Amino acid sequence: MFKFRMLVSAIALTGSMSVMAADALPTTAPAPANNPTTPEKVELGKMLYHDPRLSSTGTVACASCHNTMLGGEDNRPNSMGVNGQTGGRSAPTVWNAAFNKVQFWDGRADSLEAQAAGPVTNPIEMGMKSWDDVVARLKTIKGYRHAFELAFGSDAEAITKDNATKAIAAYERTLITPNSAYDKYVKGDKDALTEQQERGLKKAVELGCTSCHSGPAFNGPGVFQKFPVNSSGFFEAQYHFQKDKGLAEVTKKDSDEHLWKVPTLRNVALTAPYMHNGSVKTLDKAVWLMAKLQLNKELPDADVADIVAFLNALTGEFPAQTIPQLPGTPGSSFN
Amino acid sequence: MFKFRMLVSAIALTGSMSVMAADALPTTAPAPANNPTTPEKVELGKMLYHDPRLSSTGTVACASCHNTMLGGEDNRPNSMGVNGQTGGRSAPTVWNAAFNKVQFWDGRADSLEAQAAGPVTNPIEMGMKSWDDVVARLKTIKGYRHAFELAFGSDAEAITKDNATKAIAAYERTLITPNSAYDKYVKGDKDALTEQQERGLKKAVELGCTSCHSGPAFNGPGVFQKFPVNSSGFFEAQYHFQKDKGLAEVTKKDSDEHLWKVPTLRNVALTAPYMHNGSVKTLDKAVWLMAKLQLNKELPDADVADIVAFLNALTGEFPAQTIPQLPGTPGSSFN
Repeated sequence: MFKFRMLVSAIALTGSMSVMAADALPTTAPAPANNPTTPEKVELGKMLYHDPRLSSTGTVACASCHNTMLGGEDNRPNSMGVNGQTGGRSAPTVWNAAFNKVQFWDGRADSLEAQAAGPVTNPIEMGMKSWDDVVARLKTIKGYRHAFELAFGSDAEAITKDNATKAIAAYERTLITPNSAYDKYVKGDKDALTEQQERGLKKAVELGCTSCHSGPAFNGPGVFQKFPVNSSGFFEAQYHFQKDKGLAEVTKKDSDEHLWKVPTLRNVALTAPYMHNGSVKTLDKAVWLMAKLQLNKELPDADVADIVAFLNALTGEFPAQTIPQLPGTPGSSFN
Repeated sequence: MFKFRMLVSAIALTGSMSVMAADALPTTAPAPANNPTTPEKVELGKMLYHDPRLSSTGTVACASCHNTMLGGEDNRPNSMGVNGQTGGRSAPTVWNAAFNKVQFWDGRADSLEAQAAGPVTNPIEMGMKSWDDVVARLKTIKGYRHAFELAFGSDAEAITKDNATKAIAAYERTLITPNSAYDKYVKGDKDALTEQQERGLKKAVELGCTSCHSGPAFNGPGVFQKFPVNSSGFFEAQYHFQKDKGLAEVTKKDSDEHLWKVPTLRNVALTAPYMHNGSVKTLDKAVWLMAKLQLNKELPDADVADIVAFLNALTGEFPAQTIPQLPGTPGSSFN
């Protein structure tokens, strides 16, 4: 906690006249050396991302739960996979996910490429038996053969799990929402925020929100944080935050219990409901609970309203993109 | 049958040098007097069409089963609605549906507006309890209030079932796929069809396919046809075509048994599997079965291949459209 307080103070001190919690959002995302972003990969990735035929039933695409049209997620507490199955976690937004150091709520994937491989074969998400089955299905679709060859060359068999996840990741790196009111503000347009939003920003910094939610995507500087820090039977009975042990569910280490990736606050006004289990319906309740459970402060309504106003200033511009036309299936066998 | 044969002969006779089964597809669709197409309605309709929050679970949009990216349907034998439920029919394509005289496989809706109202409250499709619930939910989404007012004016309450279905229909009237190889051919580019496609067209006309599948959308001149005309225990055991009584399921009249809307052949190569119950996986099998069951002819493989080649010439250009950004939900309560 001492380290946190130091950081909060440092940020708060800089903010007397022109409060800044982070730089503007970059308009491009860095790509790993082994997967440089190319237009052909992005186009293929967009197709795969929106193609429900990557699921066992042919009904669930990446975009079903991480809906690019709907704030990058599904507005549900937990997502619904094939055959109406649900899990315990809320879908994180895909927009600006390129700026996360780790992926999934529990941070178990260290890249967008690694993340993209997961849901496809998760039995309650997209339900494919194996990536071999996915690859076999994609190979039956003539248009995909062409698109993979354009993106990855035709020297060897281009349709592979590795290339499919690389293409999806390349597409996701283009999903960036710049030019929010906050971005305009930090670039010098001091009228871009309303007075209430400016007040909310100042309060968020002073309160300590930005000790975890800082940096251009408001998701750092740390990678993982414990949540909830302070809880009680009262809150647990209502929200069940501790039922899911976060990173420890993967590592099985006691020290990782209730550690979660710090989620971005970009476009947070569009991604209700909130928290890893989607148990909090509204943004004002989420703000109040974060202050209470993480910082042990009970915020008055006016402070909540100001901070929510500021968070609305983090809603960016969603770049126009065309609907991909998916190549036809010669014969279909979903059931 | 006599009337059919007359029509076939008349069409076949005109086709000796330059075979034509139909005019080119129009690039605009007529709208009813009470719902003229406007850009604002189309934009709102596109949003509603792609919004899964029109379903009880928040997971099934119009576009889930009538996927504009995927040939206008879902490539499944039958569609999957909320909570993994399935029905007995295959989703018809939305592309060029504006040129159908009636909608649904059984033709029970006489307009796109009437059709749009159906699936939303069908318990196995989108599962909303009532349109009142849909309207109430839409009213909680601020961005929709604005979009409805733009489209329908703000004199009265703009968010209504009537306006929602009008907007969806207006959007659907823009989903037209012109400039297929066939369209170029009938406009005078005689090289637009391959020799095999030209042969397939001629055979389709001579055989009698175009006695039912004629006109610019290859779905007339009649509205309903009996299917199957000739069946047997052998085919019934394999495909179960007669299990579903078509129009008679709605009207309860014996004379309507097994009557179906004649579906468009536009983009048919993209919409496997085939027939009202999606029981036929491939286009070549569908062609063979239609000849056998409707015209009592057993086609040799070469004829099937030629006709399939021609049907591929009916795949049009899908107009580029941008992904709609759906307005955010302030608080979410799907489950």
